[in-house]
Amino acid sequence: MAGGDTRGALAGRLSDVGELGFLDSVISELGGHPDLLVGPGDDCAVIRAGDATWLVTTDAQVEGTHFLPGWLKPRQLGRKAFLVGASDIAAMGGAPRFCFVTLAAPSQMLARDAVELQRGVAQAAAECGAVVAGGNVSRSTELNISVTVVGSAPDHPMLRSGAKEGDLLYVTGSLGDAALGTRLLLKGEPAGGVPGRRFREPEPRLKAGSLLANREIASAAIDVSDGLLNDLCHVCAASNVGARVESERLPASAAVRRAGRDLALSGGEDYELLFSVPARSKGRLQSLVGGLGCKVTLIGECLPAERGVLVVCEDGVERPADLKPFRHFGSGSRRHK
Amino acid sequence: MAGGDTRGALAGRLSDVGELGFLDSVISELGGHPDLLVGPGDDCAVIRAGDATWLVTTDAQVEGTHFLPGWLKPRQLGRKAFLVGASDIAAMGGAPRFCFVTLAAPSQMLARDAVELQRGVAQAAAECGAVVAGGNVSRSTELNISVTVVGSAPDHPMLRSGAKEGDLLYVTGSLGDAALGTRLLLKGEPAGGVPGRRFREPEPRLKAGSLLANREIASAAIDVSDGLLNDLCHVCAASNVGARVESERLPASAAVRRAGRDLALSGGEDYELLFSVPARSKGRLQSLVGGLGCKVTLIGECLPAERGVLVVCEDGVERPADLKPFRHFGSGSRRHK
Repeated sequence: MAGGDTRGALAGRLSDVGELGFLDSVISELGGHPDLLVGPGDDCAVIRAGDATWLVTTDAQVEGTHFLPGWLKPRQLGRKAFLVGASDIAAMGGAPRFCFVTLAAPSQMLARDAVELQRGVAQAAAECGAVVAGGNVSRSTELNISVTVVGSAPDHPMLRSGAKEGDLLYVTGSLGDAALGTRLLLKGEPAGGVPGRRFREPEPRLKAGSLLANREIASAAIDVSDGLLNDLCHVCAASNVGARVESERLPASAAVRRAGRDLALSGGEDYELLFSVPARSKGRLQSLVGGLGCKVTLIGECLPAERGVLVVCEDGVERPADLKPFRHFGSGSRRHK
Repeated sequence: MAGGDTRGALAGRLSDVGELGFLDSVISELGGHPDLLVGPGDDCAVIRAGDATWLVTTDAQVEGTHFLPGWLKPRQLGRKAFLVGASDIAAMGGAPRFCFVTLAAPSQMLARDAVELQRGVAQAAAECGAVVAGGNVSRSTELNISVTVVGSAPDHPMLRSGAKEGDLLYVTGSLGDAALGTRLLLKGEPAGGVPGRRFREPEPRLKAGSLLANREIASAAIDVSDGLLNDLCHVCAASNVGARVESERLPASAAVRRAGRDLALSGGEDYELLFSVPARSKGRLQSLVGGLGCKVTLIGECLPAERGVLVVCEDGVERPADLKPFRHFGSGSRRHK
């Protein structure tokens, strides 16, 4: 709580400082608590509650920032608002149990649309084993739905900080489709098919996350929301390792491969799990693959920290990762949980 | 989840249906969970977590709805965003432990103001024994800060539903000042003194709530956020009782008495506790008064449900309560927790 406003890092506007700079500054000031086992900076907070351990995460969907009018039907938006939070729970290996919905909506919104939105939250929650336990509604000029998801934690939640040099890097599912869907929507194209669906409907990897955590296979994990490279850098920074990723190995649909592999590297909103596995556990992972509910792909490995984050490009040349802050079509969102 | 959109109650816009009509509809569709001991419709959700019981509540402060630019400095706004949630925890007799901050802010907001806002949350949380455990930041056109507060529950959380015919009705502190402060701010007056302070800085009655719950003195409780009469009606509806309140007994500052007792009856944003006490426990309450951290005032009693909610006016005549939906200066906010 020391006053540090005169630091150059905090001069200017939020857009100058960037969300990450802002959040780093905020997080650096926060105190801890003996029952706060993992605080801001990972996918979820990990909280001790008596003999239980819980995960808590919060995310928002703001009109104009995360989506434009017409991109999502109200029920789809409600579903997505829950599912992005469930993806954070998946990244730590937990199971969603409760959620809380804070809705700010224009007074001219149709009541049936607002109800549909809430139904979407409740429906997606039920599909993931959770219930809506509370919430709040306010008037506003722009639609803003934020969902806090509370989940039960595994015995050893997967953190961003556990990766070690030599660990293998894997990703679930497929990358880049949601970003391609966003690109199509921005062009006014109908964004049907896989890209549109992947933008509208994240698939939190709850089964995979739970198995990876409970079998203690993954040494670190994160959900890929800001683009693979950005999220890999979060893991590397938290774990104090470097990494090498082979672009050609990244799992991508035919549509993404046609549109360009950058979408898989940096597209964002994939809501897949990126996780590291000690080389000795590779066989145990392979024996589980059929039960994860999704495919997993080996995409690279962890290096000493001083190597930084490297990408083996399609031309076979290894280059330092070209990082761009993730933006929801020009605006942005950042988590500090 | 039955489709009920064709019901007349949901025709039209949110402004036609009203927040309460909307929330009633949403809540009626929600399912339960064995570990969700109290779901939407009370001040907090009550959740079982292993051998512990937790309270969770969420509230938002939206620019243009809850405040106008210039009414609150960033740190004050952050404090208020936390304190209104802590007031819900107080109403059930709990103790705040963790909070999660979802901030949507315009990109042109000064970074130091955004940091001050977060500091306000953290500072108020620390004063109440809680820590910031996570959050999220997004861009938006209007400032919207929502805070989810997680608290530990007493053995018997106070609910809205426990009042019985014949119980005495009490309120903590003083009513109407925050509404007077809002009125002065709307007129462009400097709103210094008590009214301004009471608008800017809710005082969650944590000590009083904790004692009332742990000593099992109160049969029901609610925090007075929407105006005394509205919140009394929530208790009466949940408890299936009526009530009589004596207007002249309502605790009010000299400024509120000058401005009109309606402010104390219906003003809103008081963040005091309204609670019911079985007549046999009156003496036990009086023996505790010195330790509650605030005064308490006997304002009326519970009646049979068919009597409805009555106000004994200053002219000595008993009239049915004149209920107006609470509006933050013409806009509104409603909770469904």
